[in-house]
Amino acid sequence: MKLTEIIAALGGELIGDDREVACLAPLAGAGEGEITFLANPKYRKDLDASGASCVIVREDMQAAAARDGRSLIIAANPYLYFARVAALLNPAPVAIGGVHASAVVDETACVAASAEIGANVVVGARAVVGERCRLLPGTVVGDDVTIGDDTTLYANVTVYHGCVIGARVGIHSGTVIGADGFGLAWDKDHWFKIPQTGRVLIEDDVEIGANTTIDRGALADTVIRRGAKIDNLVQIAHNCEIGEHTAIAGCTGIAGSTRVGARCTLGGAVMMVGHIEIADGTHIGGGTLVSKSIKKPDNYASSYPMSTAKEWMANAVHLRHLDALAGRVKSLEKRLAAEPASSTPQQGKEQ
Amino acid sequence: MKLTEIIAALGGELIGDDREVACLAPLAGAGEGEITFLANPKYRKDLDASGASCVIVREDMQAAAARDGRSLIIAANPYLYFARVAALLNPAPVAIGGVHASAVVDETACVAASAEIGANVVVGARAVVGERCRLLPGTVVGDDVTIGDDTTLYANVTVYHGCVIGARVGIHSGTVIGADGFGLAWDKDHWFKIPQTGRVLIEDDVEIGANTTIDRGALADTVIRRGAKIDNLVQIAHNCEIGEHTAIAGCTGIAGSTRVGARCTLGGAVMMVGHIEIADGTHIGGGTLVSKSIKKPDNYASSYPMSTAKEWMANAVHLRHLDALAGRVKSLEKRLAAEPASSTPQQGKEQ
Amino acid sequence: MKLTEIIAALGGELIGDDREVACLAPLAGAGEGEITFLANPKYRKDLDASGASCVIVREDMQAAAARDGRSLIIAANPYLYFARVAALLNPAPVAIGGVHASAVVDETACVAASAEIGANVVVGARAVVGERCRLLPGTVVGDDVTIGDDTTLYANVTVYHGCVIGARVGIHSGTVIGADGFGLAWDKDHWFKIPQTGRVLIEDDVEIGANTTIDRGALADTVIRRGAKIDNLVQIAHNCEIGEHTAIAGCTGIAGSTRVGARCTLGGAVMMVGHIEIADGTHIGGGTLVSKSIKKPDNYASSYPMSTAKEWMANAVHLRHLDALAGRVKSLEKRLAAEPASSTPQQGKEQ
Repeated sequence: MKLTEIIAALGGELIGDDREVACLAPLAGAGEGEITFLANPKYRKDLDASGASCVIVREDMQAAAARDGRSLIIAANPYLYFARVAALLNPAPVAIGGVHASAVVDETACVAASAEIGANVVVGARAVVGERCRLLPGTVVGDDVTIGDDTTLYANVTVYHGCVIGARVGIHSGTVIGADGFGLAWDKDHWFKIPQTGRVLIEDDVEIGANTTIDRGALADTVIRRGAKIDNLVQIAHNCEIGEHTAIAGCTGIAGSTRVGARCTLGGAVMMVGHIEIADGTHIGGGTLVSKSIKKPDNYASSYPMSTAKEWMANAVHLRHLDALAGRVKSLEKRLAAEPASSTPQQGKEQ
Repeated sequence: MKLTEIIAALGGELIGDDREVACLAPLAGAGEGEITFLANPKYRKDLDASGASCVIVREDMQAAAARDGRSLIIAANPYLYFARVAALLNPAPVAIGGVHASAVVDETACVAASAEIGANVVVGARAVVGERCRLLPGTVVGDDVTIGDDTTLYANVTVYHGCVIGARVGIHSGTVIGADGFGLAWDKDHWFKIPQTGRVLIEDDVEIGANTTIDRGALADTVIRRGAKIDNLVQIAHNCEIGEHTAIAGCTGIAGSTRVGARCTLGGAVMMVGHIEIADGTHIGGGTLVSKSIKKPDNYASSYPMSTAKEWMANAVHLRHLDALAGRVKSLEKRLAAEPASSTPQQGKEQ
Repeated sequence: MKLTEIIAALGGELIGDDREVACLAPLAGAGEGEITFLANPKYRKDLDASGASCVIVREDMQAAAARDGRSLIIAANPYLYFARVAALLNPAPVAIGGVHASAVVDETACVAASAEIGANVVVGARAVVGERCRLLPGTVVGDDVTIGDDTTLYANVTVYHGCVIGARVGIHSGTVIGADGFGLAWDKDHWFKIPQTGRVLIEDDVEIGANTTIDRGALADTVIRRGAKIDNLVQIAHNCEIGEHTAIAGCTGIAGSTRVGARCTLGGAVMMVGHIEIADGTHIGGGTLVSKSIKKPDNYASSYPMSTAKEWMANAVHLRHLDALAGRVKSLEKRLAAEPASSTPQQGKEQ
């Protein structure tokens, strides 16, 4: 693809010759015929080493990035521009309409002729599969499931009965949508299972990673709002709601009935207790245990900083005696306060 | 279903008219023809807003819950009663006996005629599948597996060879029973894999969530005792034993050879080291790292409380110097002890 | 198998009669016809109770382990020797060459005649499957995937298009290789998905547990080096590299572009941030949050020690005021330093 074709499709300003680029590459490793980008000034040092035919940069980096034999594209957000180039050079696969001979589609299901139903896929009774959907091999869609247009379920996905999936959704392999929530009531000497009669509703433009689990609601529905992005191995329990355009990184777990607002970001391995609400625009660092509602959007964190095991052991032992230590400091303060100071006490700025 | 029919089936006392209810709903959102419950007094404020035809309450809430046009059911445990009503109104699907044409059942397998073997299910050699079992599409049952009566394996479950599953067990999609435990011996310059020759034994009335993994034993078996309930994305390593009626919430990991007692509850994202024992009746809070045996049943916890990233950074930095801080406090105490006090020292109650 | 046959195959010295052993057992529970081992002196007390026909021990334990009616094998590393005996007594299943009638193999795929393609397996276009591979039921191999000789993909594994898997690799059920990495660029009011055009490369002799996810690279590849061992429910994000012979225990998550060195061990539930490097030979304890690069191989840890919920609450509350507490201690020190000491101050060794 020629650089002028990219500019025609995506905007931006071309500095230098109109070169041909075939693929993308990281700045440091890029060679001829490759296009790359510089977004973070920290990687500026790689500009010399890069043999890329074109580098996408912000205007203020134009002078620094210019080299003989290299063109530049000036863009306000080089990272986003680069993502758009990547999408241009790597168009998503197109559905090849039709049902594979080995697939089992219930006769009452309604599958668009333009939808691709792969090998060994199973589609249940009264299920609806929209235009240009791709259901890759081994995926199982339960009874009464509805799937909007242009949605892809990768191989070996499972969608339980009655769930609703919007348009332009992507769900990666191994992910399970709509399994029973973990609802139990103690009955004298055993657990009584509470039937989970809600559904999972996934709105348009959601993407969900691999081996993630989103449970159906107990009474009401579990809801994933428009544009939310969820990574691998994430657990979303029954009756949760994930807000629009919220991004959730891998290994995160969210307990039942918790509502996460819109445009939040959750780092990896965040754990949220149930029945809380997180304000729109909240950002939570990786490994944080969220134990109560967050009303004010901000950056939140918890997590014990790593050290060598030897240092850790020396410090961690005191964690179990923090209350006593705080009490001892208080006693010292009281005792000193009771003594006539021999000179004007120096108050540390920390006090 | 009429309220008198519910009472006839489940007991309890009807206050008010015999109304018709079709489904269940949360207290606040319930409308006509719906039945709901009040278990936690904290939701008492929702009683006014609720348009439910019937509310299940404890006797002491009868007066507070009464409204015109609403009946009450008095029950000792409204939450459990509600669960039972849910089960009454939503009976579990019944197996439709027979093997789907696309399923592959080994000729030496013994499958009950009343069992439902779904599309693309695979059942291995000498496997035994009990009466009224449901094996949903895509599930793979290995050689020599035994499955008791009335057990459901949802879609895309995998059970490795030789495992034994009891009666009335439920295993949700994506869950893997009996993969090899993580057993390795270091051999000069590489890992030597230790064959995992044990099995997984799952007793009656166990329920297991989606995408959970329970590894086979190395020599002896991994055992899940009667009535245990395990949520999604839980890892149970080789040779563990989970006690009767113990409930384990999502994202929990239990390392090898650990024995969890009966009637324990583990919150989400609990991590247990291997080769320890947890006493019957122990309760462990979400996010707790359990690093040693627990002999006395109690509530246990660990986990750094969340704060804003700014506050967190200010505090967390001191965690790495706690040992030094404790030493400084001790030095101050010694120095003060060496000085003649100018007045009777005030001992804080914390000391 | 006779003990002399084991010695002939594996070396070591036989003390006592040449007995017949059929299987392995833990020391305490072993009976006649069973072989066991003593590696950890802590289990020495079980020597009396054991009825094993043969115990594998180090030379220095020979006298302690000798009993009437019991033979010994003297080995430098009894645990490794035991692992080798286990492999001898339990040879891995051999591929039964051929494609099951229900499998769907693309006509352009190249599958070795000696490879076993199980029921309902799907193999994509131009995929290559090596000699004596075993692809168990329900596994899906995408287009252009290459799999080396003697590799086993257990049931319901998913490998995305273009990934490369070496020889003698084992991948357990439910694991997903090559799903899209979590790459997003914020575009005014929504996330723009960055196409993930790299692959996953898995070198020879790697073993991967169940329900693990390894994402394809964004531009470059995600790489798992020779001999690495990865447990269940592990998340390895795009562009990571895991070094040779590194072992990663269950529930661990590694964020994007992180490089873990060779011969490292990661305990369970370790969480690593992205874009860091971990030195060869580093050992990281279970539950540790690794938030920066590790340049010096050592043992590393973090994690708040468990206590009863009551104790925990009393101590944890101070974590949020550690900065203030440290400041108060500093103030006390300054005040005392300003006073003329009434006697020679006693400096604690902690200071």
